[in-house]
Amino acid sequence: MTALPPGSTIGILGGGQLGRMLAMAAARLGLKCHVFSDSSGPAFDVAAAHTVGDYHDLKAVRHFAQSVDVVTYEFENVPRATAEAAASVRPVRPSVKALEVAQDRLVEKTFIAGLGLPVAPFAAVDSEDSLLAAVKQLGTPAILKTRRLGYDGKGQARIKSTSTTELAEARSSSGRAPAILEGFVNFQFEVSVLVVRGIDGTECFYDVPLNTHKNGILDTSAVPAPLSSATRTKANEIAGAIADALGYVGVLAVEMFFVGEEASAPLVVNEIAPRVHNSGHWTTDACLVSQFENHIRAVAGWPLGPADRHSDAIMTNLIGADVNEWASLAATPGTAVHFYGKNDPRPGRKMGHVTQLLPKSADVDG
Amino acid sequence: MTALPPGSTIGILGGGQLGRMLAMAAARLGLKCHVFSDSSGPAFDVAAAHTVGDYHDLKAVRHFAQSVDVVTYEFENVPRATAEAAASVRPVRPSVKALEVAQDRLVEKTFIAGLGLPVAPFAAVDSEDSLLAAVKQLGTPAILKTRRLGYDGKGQARIKSTSTTELAEARSSSGRAPAILEGFVNFQFEVSVLVVRGIDGTECFYDVPLNTHKNGILDTSAVPAPLSSATRTKANEIAGAIADALGYVGVLAVEMFFVGEEASAPLVVNEIAPRVHNSGHWTTDACLVSQFENHIRAVAGWPLGPADRHSDAIMTNLIGADVNEWASLAATPGTAVHFYGKNDPRPGRKMGHVTQLLPKSADVDG
Repeated sequence: MTALPPGSTIGILGGGQLGRMLAMAAARLGLKCHVFSDSSGPAFDVAAAHTVGDYHDLKAVRHFAQSVDVVTYEFENVPRATAEAAASVRPVRPSVKALEVAQDRLVEKTFIAGLGLPVAPFAAVDSEDSLLAAVKQLGTPAILKTRRLGYDGKGQARIKSTSTTELAEARSSSGRAPAILEGFVNFQFEVSVLVVRGIDGTECFYDVPLNTHKNGILDTSAVPAPLSSATRTKANEIAGAIADALGYVGVLAVEMFFVGEEASAPLVVNEIAPRVHNSGHWTTDACLVSQFENHIRAVAGWPLGPADRHSDAIMTNLIGADVNEWASLAATPGTAVHFYGKNDPRPGRKMGHVTQLLPKSADVDG
Repeated sequence: MTALPPGSTIGILGGGQLGRMLAMAAARLGLKCHVFSDSSGPAFDVAAAHTVGDYHDLKAVRHFAQSVDVVTYEFENVPRATAEAAASVRPVRPSVKALEVAQDRLVEKTFIAGLGLPVAPFAAVDSEDSLLAAVKQLGTPAILKTRRLGYDGKGQARIKSTSTTELAEARSSSGRAPAILEGFVNFQFEVSVLVVRGIDGTECFYDVPLNTHKNGILDTSAVPAPLSSATRTKANEIAGAIADALGYVGVLAVEMFFVGEEASAPLVVNEIAPRVHNSGHWTTDACLVSQFENHIRAVAGWPLGPADRHSDAIMTNLIGADVNEWASLAATPGTAVHFYGKNDPRPGRKMGHVTQLLPKSADVDG
């Protein structure tokens, strides 16, 4: 395939802040965007065209796909039929396969373990009996997660014992949906790898941030994470292997637990996201080419841009009412502010982020 | 005045690449843009709203102004009546006064000289007699420029002698319009200062680039220019004094000739542009907050963002067919590409630019 020249149109499924930042990155490259979403969203304000439609209206999805040159998506829960309808008309990148794997935690874990990569011990749960068996197998504490949907900690229950009451409550809190039990990983901190894979299989990697969470939602991503060069190399190898196995095109986020430099497997894969990722928002300010631009470059068949950072960075999410401090945040020295143009600062809603830039440090090694 | 909160709308007069990059910067801040232009342009693809209208249709201009919270512009030849019509409805920033001064080279030079700042010697020309008198006064070589319009070297004629034929030709080539003759300045190179002035009078300054031209059009801007710290301070003082005298709000570009560190006036003002400027395009890649974002911050009444550079940079314009090399440019190491989404790569047309980023150097001093 030839690269799509400037003037071409990228179709984006999803109209949230990730779609917005993808559209802004596409504009740098002279590419237009057409956003398809089930409701008007922040991406609409920066896209050349937008369509409000039901994701299950496959005729509308095909019509949308016909109006663009390639289709990508900004959220991993695009219904499979939607992605396939688009793919019947135009290339969909990343592929439908990547969606399939990422949408189901059991399929995801099985896929990654099948590549010989370290994941937390896990077992399928579809009844109280299988939950009890799983808890006995993996021990406590453990985490019960629904196989599908659920993000930012939603649809998850921590299990501390084999008590019948506790297991029943956990099943109940996860809506008795098909689930997966994950064994406890005693980790020091979470990191993530953002790998970009081009249509020719070329890969590049952003520096690895250390991620912290608050109320189950990403709070900060600080780059660089204090990892040895060997562990950083390992992190990239893991993410690269997953992207290769998926025949991936675009930005893939791989969240990993860092267990410790001395561990036989210092890194354990937590989950993947087949899209640009909140833990890569710092790349807009600290890299010449951001995760958003490199995703667009990849899906448009362009050469990938440089992913190295020119500065250290600490990205902090603005959740809900945090955004009301916009004026003082905008006056904070050395800090870039990003607001998503959302009207309603509901609790738990991602409203923006700030990036504090710092001189580039030497890499930690040890 | 209170700062306009995220969700407010910035009105932009003009739909070219500067409007496009302003709209993208506004989007980072959660601000919407409404672009008014006499034809569909690159800014339309990234703005929440756009209107095609005649700048002289003052009813349409007022209607546009009513739909936004503040009005700014991306080109200095906004007709005065247009700006005044908008200003009768909403704040126009930078002010109509700044347009008035920048639109007429004689008014501009008189204004700057009146502040006690160094400009090239000049004289008004409105006939062949006054041209001859001006050439005799200022000597040759000299440059005849129309007072109004003309950019990228258009509407200019170089005069090398007092020969009647040559003077008649110069008058003819400038359409016999009211003009200004500028005396020769023996300069080493051109620099520009991008000063940002907030609504409270706070000023900040981007580092000074060295500008080169090709066929009368800006070719490269490289930062930092090799100026001593005393001369850099002087450059900022000159630009700041002009911005103060205009009660300016937004980004003001002041082009200056660098004559030499030993000269009594090392810097001579060439011209000003009351808008974001091509010689500041590198700020998008080499600064945390670009000239575009700081212009938007200023006109929206926000605190200004940091203007210091984290890297050195060389910006090169892509003119006309240069843009056909987009694929190899996108593959150039250490380089960010920016394409404006224009369809027709006519000779002389600004189609995009590239920024090569380099590690930040120590400032030259001497």
